[in-house]
Amino acid sequence: MNTLRVPVVEKILNANDQLAEQNRRRLDQAGTFGINLMASPGAGKTSVILQTIRRLAGSTRIGVIEGDTAPVTIDADRVISAGMPAVQINTGGDCHLDAVMIANGLNQIAVDQLDLIIVENVGNLICPAAFQLGTHTNVLIASIPEGDDKPYKYPNIYRGIDVLILNKIDLLPYVRFDMDYFRKGVEILNPGVKVFPVSCASGEGFDPWLDWLRAKLSKE
Amino acid sequence: MNTLRVPVVEKILNANDQLAEQNRRRLDQAGTFGINLMASPGAGKTSVILQTIRRLAGSTRIGVIEGDTAPVTIDADRVISAGMPAVQINTGGDCHLDAVMIANGLNQIAVDQLDLIIVENVGNLICPAAFQLGTHTNVLIASIPEGDDKPYKYPNIYRGIDVLILNKIDLLPYVRFDMDYFRKGVEILNPGVKVFPVSCASGEGFDPWLDWLRAKLSKE
Repeated sequence: MNTLRVPVVEKILNANDQLAEQNRRRLDQAGTFGINLMASPGAGKTSVILQTIRRLAGSTRIGVIEGDTAPVTIDADRVISAGMPAVQINTGGDCHLDAVMIANGLNQIAVDQLDLIIVENVGNLICPAAFQLGTHTNVLIASIPEGDDKPYKYPNIYRGIDVLILNKIDLLPYVRFDMDYFRKGVEILNPGVKVFPVSCASGEGFDPWLDWLRAKLSKE
Repeated sequence: MNTLRVPVVEKILNANDQLAEQNRRRLDQAGTFGINLMASPGAGKTSVILQTIRRLAGSTRIGVIEGDTAPVTIDADRVISAGMPAVQINTGGDCHLDAVMIANGLNQIAVDQLDLIIVENVGNLICPAAFQLGTHTNVLIASIPEGDDKPYKYPNIYRGIDVLILNKIDLLPYVRFDMDYFRKGVEILNPGVKVFPVSCASGEGFDPWLDWLRAKLSKE
């Protein structure tokens, strides 16, 4: 059974990866930098997006593709209220976005007019790690109240990221969180990965993340 | 394509449900009450289990089946340190436990000697909702810092639960959380569901949950 199963899974992944390559070419042709933003439910994906929009709105045209497992437009509505275009993709219960859904999302947004497109993946630390979307960079948001052991428990997603945003640092005085233990877990899985501690509630810590992002955008 | 796909998925679910039925009979014969405990990563599943063990240890024999996506025994070790038996199931990257894994777990634990078995599902609000395990009741833990919009965003898991434990109420003064909005979302999806607000950090709120659990155990 297993010898049969492995090639089938590989074939599916390859079809996804091929479409991801097409998405990437489309972004490159438009000169648009693409971010795949992943996190656990409630870690603050939409809040980080809104803070980023607020601080870059004067200089950068940003679009958002919102992945949700249900037909709710709460997050997309918040982005549109912040003055940027957003497309909502309902995965119909699936636990991740894939390259087909992103291709559909790109059809519904004026990519050519954007400098940056942020894909807010489904809130989940497992499934999104396995699917290429065609974006240029993988960003994970962890948050202080989730606990310091998450890199040890969800290693696959920590291995595949380029940037880690550590949100809700304003809650550090109120919860047990061993920063050294957390950082050690991250470093073992992904040596040298960029880590940006931030608070969406206070606005603290966003400058280094925005500097990193501006440097990436200037290369596109 | 879809007409082919639907029956195949149904067949898999039926096989799982059949094995779930066997698991249920096994628990019933042993006189053991089974809980399927689900939550987002970091909502406090293991902490709620440890608080429950601490308060019931004198009167109730409790075993735990720990589901993890990676071969880490952090949670199982904490249960064993609290003096109760625990079995760790590594899903090998899968985003949920299924009835086969529970059957294997039950083979590794002395079910006959237990009054209560708690299955700690994989940290995820999407996949675990779709798979019966054979336990008697589905309990979801939500937590204050995850945000008040989670019932609206992950409706399937809220629909299928018997009990909702709302953890980390000690953080209410420090985060924005509209309790009425949250409760309204829960009530629309699952009218009359039991809700127990608790804090594992302070120990607050555990008596009503334990009263509910003792009443269930006395019926077994």
